[in-house]
Amino acid sequence: MKEANDYLLINLLGTDEQQLRLARVKDGMRAAGIETAIVRSNTNIYYLTGRVFRGYVYISLGLDEPLYFVRQPSTLRAMPGKKIYHVRKPEEIAAILAEEGMPVGGRVALELDAMPYAEALRIAKAMGMDAPSENISPVLRNARAVKTACELSKLRTSGEKQTLVYERIPHLYQEGMSDIEFQIEIERASRLEGCLGIFRIGGSEMELFMGNVLTGENADTPSPYDFAMGGAGADPSLPVGADGTVIKPGIPVMVDVNGNYTGYMTDMTRCFYTGSLSERAGKAVRLSIAICDELAAMMKPGAKASDLYERALALATEAGMEEFFMGHRYHAGFVGHGIGIEVNELPVLAPRSKDILEAGNVIAVEPKFVIPGIGAAGVENTYIVTADGGQCITNAPLDPVRLD
Amino acid sequence: MKEANDYLLINLLGTDEQQLRLARVKDGMRAAGIETAIVRSNTNIYYLTGRVFRGYVYISLGLDEPLYFVRQPSTLRAMPGKKIYHVRKPEEIAAILAEEGMPVGGRVALELDAMPYAEALRIAKAMGMDAPSENISPVLRNARAVKTACELSKLRTSGEKQTLVYERIPHLYQEGMSDIEFQIEIERASRLEGCLGIFRIGGSEMELFMGNVLTGENADTPSPYDFAMGGAGADPSLPVGADGTVIKPGIPVMVDVNGNYTGYMTDMTRCFYTGSLSERAGKAVRLSIAICDELAAMMKPGAKASDLYERALALATEAGMEEFFMGHRYHAGFVGHGIGIEVNELPVLAPRSKDILEAGNVIAVEPKFVIPGIGAAGVENTYIVTADGGQCITNAPLDPVRLD
Repeated sequence: MKEANDYLLINLLGTDEQQLRLARVKDGMRAAGIETAIVRSNTNIYYLTGRVFRGYVYISLGLDEPLYFVRQPSTLRAMPGKKIYHVRKPEEIAAILAEEGMPVGGRVALELDAMPYAEALRIAKAMGMDAPSENISPVLRNARAVKTACELSKLRTSGEKQTLVYERIPHLYQEGMSDIEFQIEIERASRLEGCLGIFRIGGSEMELFMGNVLTGENADTPSPYDFAMGGAGADPSLPVGADGTVIKPGIPVMVDVNGNYTGYMTDMTRCFYTGSLSERAGKAVRLSIAICDELAAMMKPGAKASDLYERALALATEAGMEEFFMGHRYHAGFVGHGIGIEVNELPVLAPRSKDILEAGNVIAVEPKFVIPGIGAAGVENTYIVTADGGQCITNAPLDPVRLD
Repeated sequence: MKEANDYLLINLLGTDEQQLRLARVKDGMRAAGIETAIVRSNTNIYYLTGRVFRGYVYISLGLDEPLYFVRQPSTLRAMPGKKIYHVRKPEEIAAILAEEGMPVGGRVALELDAMPYAEALRIAKAMGMDAPSENISPVLRNARAVKTACELSKLRTSGEKQTLVYERIPHLYQEGMSDIEFQIEIERASRLEGCLGIFRIGGSEMELFMGNVLTGENADTPSPYDFAMGGAGADPSLPVGADGTVIKPGIPVMVDVNGNYTGYMTDMTRCFYTGSLSERAGKAVRLSIAICDELAAMMKPGAKASDLYERALALATEAGMEEFFMGHRYHAGFVGHGIGIEVNELPVLAPRSKDILEAGNVIAVEPKFVIPGIGAAGVENTYIVTADGGQCITNAPLDPVRLD
């Protein structure tokens, strides 16, 4: 476990790792003409410090290190020889900056894609502005799209643990189980392996519990969320995923369950079945694996994200499966997405994406099919973009596994 | 399960129930001088329609019923004889309103406490405003604070199911378990009973997985989240709750796990132990029960929320337990909170709360203690405010239950 003393440091990343991340953020700030920024979201504070606290990280191009304004926990400490500032409200920040001889009153960028309107307005006013103007969200999103070696290590660990759990899945099935009952056993196995459970998604419209297990017609129920797959869910208050459908022979069960073991998530999907798997489902899974392989080979720095989507669609079309690609009654508009602290990071593999792949991107590729009368079939893997192509970090066996 | 046809209706509440809720919202709008509002958050769309969809609910004092602008799923239908509008982006709303002969260009209130800044600005501009001005968030928060009979029924069901699970908890313990391992078995039992898992919390700063199980010194670790209790958690990316501490004889294990079985959550906490429970812990639990009883008796329409907090604090002080009340190294600033679709609704039982209790408020009361060397002790119950006082809907046995 943690060392009691070190655990109180506000920067759990260490100086070098933090500087690597800050350099990426500051490059983005320079390119966007942003001089200073205040970061408040849990995800971005975690990115910048390796921990979640309640307060603000103040980044200025003129400062080597960030300033920390901490509301809670008040026990946090700076690195030796440095300071952090305890505040009760954002209005105290400007006075502290003035006391410390920092410039106050210029424009300060905020996370305008994430921060609630009323809060952004309040912080802007506290910093002497009439209203927020500059948006640091895209800068942070771009910085986070290219992972550092430390982040990749956390992602690899998540992939390894998620793989261990997925290899155990066939032992979790009992005859007569519904999709929800099966999912619950996978959730438990994941948690026992160290899964943190929480599923971080950018954007206030998105909600999911621990993952999505789909079987049969339920896979063709459109959901309001922008995930690759839908499902009615167990209740109209959370209309996504398993709905209580009993697992039937020959019909695939698609398992896409939370891989957050380290604060960094991997994404993996596999299909399982009882009896003899429907031939069409088996074919769809093989096509999905082939698309993953082709996209992995294309996953080199400089590749266009939109080209990867188009290639996946072309392969599905060649196989006569376009109608079922990424859904049937509803088609998701992407075949892959960046992943890390959140499940929907950059780059996005979508037709209108302008993203260009870079070494260190981490991308989940999920070419999935929904076939009427059969349900969902396909796989998903998480890859690190390298000069040699995508390196897969979710390595459970790809072929559908028989449960009974 | 659901009827396929009815399930496609955008208003799953039925006309009467929706009108009850709308009447509360419209009263609030009139009091706040708001003529029209656009609601977009999942929680408030669920409140207004009984389902979650991706889109907008347009409420106008001049219209008997809301208008629905739906992005997804596109399969949703209006009630017979009514219309809904499918849109791809908010910019289409104004044109549709104009086509339908509705007034466009006036001020439209938005959920400014919840909606991200950039999105609020975009919708305001789409509606012909320079910037958002009026905030519908407080109106909706106040409306939701008083539950309808239908909502109370969902809350009672959650309380009954959560009680069944809590009664099963002693059978889930095995010798040598850590707090996390114990929590995982409680999570599984909850899910098997129908718990939806998702834990909705207002405010972007708050995060929790399925609940909080605390034992020993870990209970005294301050957390950045504004929950009654803290804990280090398993990882600095989610610093709250169980941290892997092994359950030890005599030391209470405080269990506060998700009661969301219906889209409406109840909140219940109980203590468990192995061996013989520390006398101080037993005393703290008895004091907590006594405070709950006193507060329940005060829970009548017209009571001041702040008086309930003060009474709880006075009882803790009389018992010489003030130092440990609602935490030790860090003290939470409240002893109870409204609960429903989210875990942090109105009213709030806190010293500076201006809330006045009304019949139909649903309040979780959690007078808890953190004692150094022992850990967390106390109970929590969820009550409906009635003319006769608080009616408890979380009815698992109150006394600490031995596990071994």
